Amino acid sequence: MTKIITIGREFGSGGRTIGKAVAEKLGIPCYDYELLLKIAEESGLSEQFIQERAENSSVSSVVARGLSGLGKHSYTSTEDYLWKIQKKVITDIAAKESCVIIGRCADWLLSDKADCLRVFIYADVKKRAERIVNVYGERKESPEKRIKDKDKHRSTFYYLHTDMEWGNVHNYHICLDSGELGIERCTDIIASLY
Amino acid sequence: MTKIITIGREFGSGGRTIGKAVAEKLGIPCYDYELLLKIAEESGLSEQFIQERAENSSVSSVVARGLSGLGKHSYTSTEDYLWKIQKKVITDIAAKESCVIIGRCADWLLSDKADCLRVFIYADVKKRAERIVNVYGERKESPEKRIKDKDKHRSTFYYLHTDMEWGNVHNYHICLDSGELGIERCTDIIASLY
Repeated sequence: MTKIITIGREFGSGGRTIGKAVAEKLGIPCYDYELLLKIAEESGLSEQFIQERAENSSVSSVVARGLSGLGKHSYTSTEDYLWKIQKKVITDIAAKESCVIIGRCADWLLSDKADCLRVFIYADVKKRAERIVNVYGERKESPEKRIKDKDKHRSTFYYLHTDMEWGNVHNYHICLDSGELGIERCTDIIASLY
Repeated sequence: MTKIITIGREFGSGGRTIGKAVAEKLGIPCYDYELLLKIAEESGLSEQFIQERAENSSVSSVVARGLSGLGKHSYTSTEDYLWKIQKKVITDIAAKESCVIIGRCADWLLSDKADCLRVFIYADVKKRAERIVNVYGERKESPEKRIKDKDKHRSTFYYLHTDMEWGNVHNYHICLDSGELGIERCTDIIASLY
């Protein structure tokens, strides 16, 4: 039976870095960008389109859905199609091999799977702002604005597809403040729970 | 310098048991009922009154506050008095000795203290319902109703005094699902972070 670790994370919290370090420590693969490639392959859609849509829902698409009167489980057809592919890719991977999966509602998609550790990584805005400037560089927008926008898109996407609140403790087995505990300690704790 | 661990916890999650086990493991005191005794001694109020009010705010008292037009930082005088005493007792203890403190908004009261690990323990309702029947026995009300009422009082009290959402990850350094991880593993993780 495969064992999976899913990592939900706030933008700039270092959740991806932690996920990769956990996978390396445990000698299992980590799916992040690799997931996107698999979704692209399976769907025929471009990587860029998926990067924009596979985890981020624009507020306008939510409003459009609301106005359409189609209800919460109806989407514009491309989003619906993409969600189905994403679901298939993630459940297929989880059935095939033990691994770490970053983001993309994997915690919710695999919530019925017994051997799945669901993790959420967060940190305060000040520490995340410092981190994204270090990791991704300066942009025209302030790091605080970039964080707010990215988190808003992630939480909207999560709510749209799962009806659950992104970052609510009850969706995860363990939630760690990477800003206070540090990347290394978070990695050690998660690996020790595997 | 003293080192403190605060444990916020959902009713029936075993947070108190975990806190006591952590304290025992680290050889430091755990303040739970002992805090109540200190508050009683300092305030002159009865233990029973404090037990009812020092962590639980009745919804009626919140409504009364709202109707009074006194705003969020004005309370009925006894509640205000009790809160001041609770604050003094907790900050005094934290300054004097390293320890574990259970509940009572200690995380928020000590949020400025550098050496304070803020923990939140939770679990799903089903597992908590089983636990409270095992630990506290059957009551006329269903365990689910008891959980709902107790958590509502704790979150109302927390919000009333801190303006923050009880159980929101950003108020804590680590949040653990005791139902999934188990009491022992939660204890080990917290003790390892001390």
